[in-house]
Amino acid sequence: MTTDHLVLFMPSGKRGRFPKGTTVLDAARQLGVYVESVCGGRATCGRCQIEVQEGHFAKHKISSSKESISPVGPREARYAEKRDLPAGRRLSCSATVEGDLVVDVPQDTVINAQVVRKDADARVIERFPAVHLCYVEVEEPDMHRPLGDLDRLRQQLRKDWGFGRIEADAHLLPLVQPILREGRWSVTAAVHQDEDDDAARLIALWPGLKNEAYGLACDIGSTTIAMHLVSLLSGRVVASAGASNPQIRFGEDLMSRVSYVMMNPDGREAMTRAVRQEISKLVQKVADNGGIERDDILDSVFVANPIMHHLFLGIDPTELGGAPFALAVSGAVRMNADDLRLKLNPGARTYLLPCIAGHVGADAAAVTLSEGPHRQDRMMLIVDVGTNAEIVLGNRERVVAASSPTGPAFEGAEISSGQRAAPGAIERVRIDRQTLEPRYRVIGSDLWSDDPGFPASVGETGVTGVCGSGIIEVVAEMYLTGIISEDGVIDGALAARSPRIVANGRTFSYVLSEAEPRLTITQNDVRAIQLAKAALYAGIRLLMEKQEVETVDVIRFAGAFGSFIDPQYAMVLGLIPDCELENVSAVGNAAGTGARMALLNRNFRREIEETVRRIEKIETALEPKFQEHFVHAMALPNKIDPFPKLAAQVQLPPRKGLDDDGDGGGRPRRRSREERAARRRG
Amino acid sequence: MTTDHLVLFMPSGKRGRFPKGTTVLDAARQLGVYVESVCGGRATCGRCQIEVQEGHFAKHKISSSKESISPVGPREARYAEKRDLPAGRRLSCSATVEGDLVVDVPQDTVINAQVVRKDADARVIERFPAVHLCYVEVEEPDMHRPLGDLDRLRQQLRKDWGFGRIEADAHLLPLVQPILREGRWSVTAAVHQDEDDDAARLIALWPGLKNEAYGLACDIGSTTIAMHLVSLLSGRVVASAGASNPQIRFGEDLMSRVSYVMMNPDGREAMTRAVRQEISKLVQKVADNGGIERDDILDSVFVANPIMHHLFLGIDPTELGGAPFALAVSGAVRMNADDLRLKLNPGARTYLLPCIAGHVGADAAAVTLSEGPHRQDRMMLIVDVGTNAEIVLGNRERVVAASSPTGPAFEGAEISSGQRAAPGAIERVRIDRQTLEPRYRVIGSDLWSDDPGFPASVGETGVTGVCGSGIIEVVAEMYLTGIISEDGVIDGALAARSPRIVANGRTFSYVLSEAEPRLTITQNDVRAIQLAKAALYAGIRLLMEKQEVETVDVIRFAGAFGSFIDPQYAMVLGLIPDCELENVSAVGNAAGTGARMALLNRNFRREIEETVRRIEKIETALEPKFQEHFVHAMALPNKIDPFPKLAAQVQLPPRKGLDDDGDGGGRPRRRSREERAARRRG
Repeated sequence: MTTDHLVLFMPSGKRGRFPKGTTVLDAARQLGVYVESVCGGRATCGRCQIEVQEGHFAKHKISSSKESISPVGPREARYAEKRDLPAGRRLSCSATVEGDLVVDVPQDTVINAQVVRKDADARVIERFPAVHLCYVEVEEPDMHRPLGDLDRLRQQLRKDWGFGRIEADAHLLPLVQPILREGRWSVTAAVHQDEDDDAARLIALWPGLKNEAYGLACDIGSTTIAMHLVSLLSGRVVASAGASNPQIRFGEDLMSRVSYVMMNPDGREAMTRAVRQEISKLVQKVADNGGIERDDILDSVFVANPIMHHLFLGIDPTELGGAPFALAVSGAVRMNADDLRLKLNPGARTYLLPCIAGHVGADAAAVTLSEGPHRQDRMMLIVDVGTNAEIVLGNRERVVAASSPTGPAFEGAEISSGQRAAPGAIERVRIDRQTLEPRYRVIGSDLWSDDPGFPASVGETGVTGVCGSGIIEVVAEMYLTGIISEDGVIDGALAARSPRIVANGRTFSYVLSEAEPRLTITQNDVRAIQLAKAALYAGIRLLMEKQEVETVDVIRFAGAFGSFIDPQYAMVLGLIPDCELENVSAVGNAAGTGARMALLNRNFRREIEETVRRIEKIETALEPKFQEHFVHAMALPNKIDPFPKLAAQVQLPPRKGLDDDGDGGGRPRRRSREERAARRRG
Repeated sequence: MTTDHLVLFMPSGKRGRFPKGTTVLDAARQLGVYVESVCGGRATCGRCQIEVQEGHFAKHKISSSKESISPVGPREARYAEKRDLPAGRRLSCSATVEGDLVVDVPQDTVINAQVVRKDADARVIERFPAVHLCYVEVEEPDMHRPLGDLDRLRQQLRKDWGFGRIEADAHLLPLVQPILREGRWSVTAAVHQDEDDDAARLIALWPGLKNEAYGLACDIGSTTIAMHLVSLLSGRVVASAGASNPQIRFGEDLMSRVSYVMMNPDGREAMTRAVRQEISKLVQKVADNGGIERDDILDSVFVANPIMHHLFLGIDPTELGGAPFALAVSGAVRMNADDLRLKLNPGARTYLLPCIAGHVGADAAAVTLSEGPHRQDRMMLIVDVGTNAEIVLGNRERVVAASSPTGPAFEGAEISSGQRAAPGAIERVRIDRQTLEPRYRVIGSDLWSDDPGFPASVGETGVTGVCGSGIIEVVAEMYLTGIISEDGVIDGALAARSPRIVANGRTFSYVLSEAEPRLTITQNDVRAIQLAKAALYAGIRLLMEKQEVETVDVIRFAGAFGSFIDPQYAMVLGLIPDCELENVSAVGNAAGTGARMALLNRNFRREIEETVRRIEKIETALEPKFQEHFVHAMALPNKIDPFPKLAAQVQLPPRKGLDDDGDGGGRPRRRSREERAARRRG
């Protein structure tokens, strides 16, 4: 009969039987449960804290009590006294299994009172970082066994921490002897190992116990760079900061930056320098905010769209400016942070997630990693709307991806009253079904335009324009109120009913705001939105065809723009396919979350590398059916696709294309240039 | 019945059976016979040349004829025409097996008429370099499969060349796209792989076929730096150069350089800079002499004694200046050449052989690799005489090593008429058994001093002093002629017989040259040589004890000094143990040869790493019996050890210690300070 006890680790749910007296840390390691430890079981680093769950856990068929774990011994008591171990917490390196046990591995082990940030996604990321701190006590030199100091250090690391071959970074060679002596043969080594079959690398060394190590997770967007400073030992985000991408001065959108490189001999270098300098400033900012030294940053993960990815790496992005949109490198990139002049710890490493395709970058890969379509059974659609929309659709079985050239309309460009999302911009619009009178909200105020005190609340900025989400809403409301037809034509007949409908040459406009500046939605504006959303939807539809599905189960809007879109209006316009509204959500900076995952757990690097290899890339420009989908998607919400789930929640106007009841509007329908072109080809 | 044909490769002797039509290159690869190929079998690089041996080879039971190989095909004919393939040579990638075949793999494949140097050891080194040139034709980018350019390159390298995982050096990322396009998707990649389980690294890339790659093999001695430029593709030494170690200005010998570091805050940096700069100059020199660009140098191997090894790597050598003589790093060191500011190709690698112990460096390891005591059954003694003699003794079974503090006497220091080996220095001495008159030769002249025309032949320098090998000879001759006793005492009674013996205070001297400057060998000079040779011999004797042998089979003198010593005189003095004189030889710059081996074949790196791990290190200072051996070794040739093999070839004076026939000399024997001290202890 075995006397082994059952130990269940939460939240992973991993379980196993261990002999009485096994340390909880050993049990965790044997089960592959990641419990941090720097001191290697000496009860000095405090990183290996766990909590015992008491009670009977019927689901797991296990009863656990405080008696199932050894009482606090002298070493643990000494740590608890010196370092103020929170009540209920135990050091798993010292506590041993004495009975059946349910152990919770908290992910928020606080050492040295780190600042905790709430900005970043609060999700708990299981940890298995590529950089590990390892405290070792090295044998002193022995004339009879003249192994070098570094060699004895490596030997001890292999012995105590189970590494195989260990190579040392060149810059450490002159430092090993003085650090070993300063630490009186006790040192903490930072060991980097990313791939399992890599030789481990000694990348940094400190005398004595070093109990802090940090990493960066950074999303380099075309307009914004967002950076998190993360403790590699607790997983906490200790500081976050953002900055405008300084490359904006070389061109607002990506293609104009590519043009800049093509036109200017030093353009690529100037842009690389600009983005690296800004990132270096952000590093200083998060280090200052987190109260740490740059030297304590040992790892970094970057995600970016393909052009920013290339410029950051110093690669000329010209090839991405035209077919076949050849990436210089699509796979994950590993290098020393020093190669990028980031001025972190001299041994710090950098990892860039793989790019999916020439227009679907490492940022889309990071969003995929974060949202995990490949980890689940439901058919998940991920849309990152920008000048180029990046679209990923899939589930555990299969994932496909594409980009669609939506153009800048969703960002307020090409719209007569359009502007960037900034204070003064209209972001929400409602139009009265009867009077056709609008009301709206602007960025910077919580009031609607018909609320008392609204003018005062918008203050100095006033109402300056309409941003992307505002445009989506006003066009959708115009459709829902019948101001525009399913085909997107503004109904001039309504001018008789409302002074908001005004003639504008041969077409009509809707006056959203009479005040100065007068803001109108013109027929051209509606067309621009139609073109943009048709491109997006056609791309999505192509992917749905590849997946052989008619509906999607879940929709995730990624990116800043996605955070502001009301999913209902997006669906009314037909940007996205029909879906239960409760299953449509914005996921904020999912790219940043994906970067943090890759920073904190190298298994996530393998996961996304493998996933990106598996993802089927669809080049929309090469797909014959794209035009057909595009033409159908010019209609609101779509010429042929039904939106039953949307219709169940929103009263949609009767649909011409589906019930074929005539033109339904005041004026004869004019085909767009695109439609005509497509018909000629079709 | 098999129709396979027997193929035997020479000089390796590897053999196997292959189907008719197998290319000879494929057959070689399957047998693990290294045949170079850059173009991967396209008959364009010409590196895979072989020769068919015709006739019946009874020993191997195989008959081989020109009919056993396919006739020259069109591709091979085209190469032969364009590139002038030597008569009898075939391209193994195109020639196929058509019958039983004996194939010679010549090691001197000449492409582009490389300069051939004779200076370096002419031995043929079987090749398996860590850096390999690989020509590939990469798929063009495809929008349907948006793998990056680098990723397709890696894919092709894996496919054509059998690599596993390939990582690219960071500096190449921006270069991959333009180089692929310049080469119209045909490029030559330099791939570095040292350890089998390393990921391969792409370290350099050229458009089209690149058919040249070089490496450096460099021995950084305390006084001299010697460098060979070697073709990694043919194994040939294409240029060699040497320079004085510029650190001499910080201190003549190693310990004074360590002192300089200890006394001067910037001493370590100054010395590191000095040696690296000198090496960089030598790189330029060998590149110029070889007619190549520095950029074509892709690998480099350095060997050095521990202090030079540390200073070259930028490591403070202070710890090596005192017990326990702790090396900062003893294992082999791998890094980028760029980390050492060597300005080779930006992707070039550097390898340093392991150090054996605090006083037995990577140079001794290189000598060991070159001479290979561990590869044979005979008991081989390797002696590298310098201020510190490095001694290695062993065979296949077991290798032991030690260093012995011989002091600088062998280099002419501490000798009243001593000087460095330079023109004007006496290097050979004979003393007439009857008249006690000397004759000698000096460096810079081929004549003996009693030859007609000698004064003119020494020219301006004149006769300026006695160098190390001269001192060994004069003292040995003084012993053989009875001028000094077995105990090293100059016999004053002989002053009556020859004016060459003169009183010098309470002792006597021997006048070697009457001319200005007058050169005498004083009693103190003899004592200095006795002390030096006793230290060396005592170290050797300790190692022989560890090996439990009374004699050695083979003796190798390594280093410059070793090249000038006459083994017979060294043995008469008892520097080295008794041995057949024909088995004693100087091996010149064996350290440089070892470095070349490690450069040209990475298996030799593993071999020496493994051997150094196995070598047992003896710290002479800690061995109680060292003193006893030292005391016995003060006598000429030795107090107790017989030299029967030497006695069979040289008529030695009767030995007092062995036949105990009294004092044998004119004056009572005076014990040396060391002997007296040892006796007190013993």
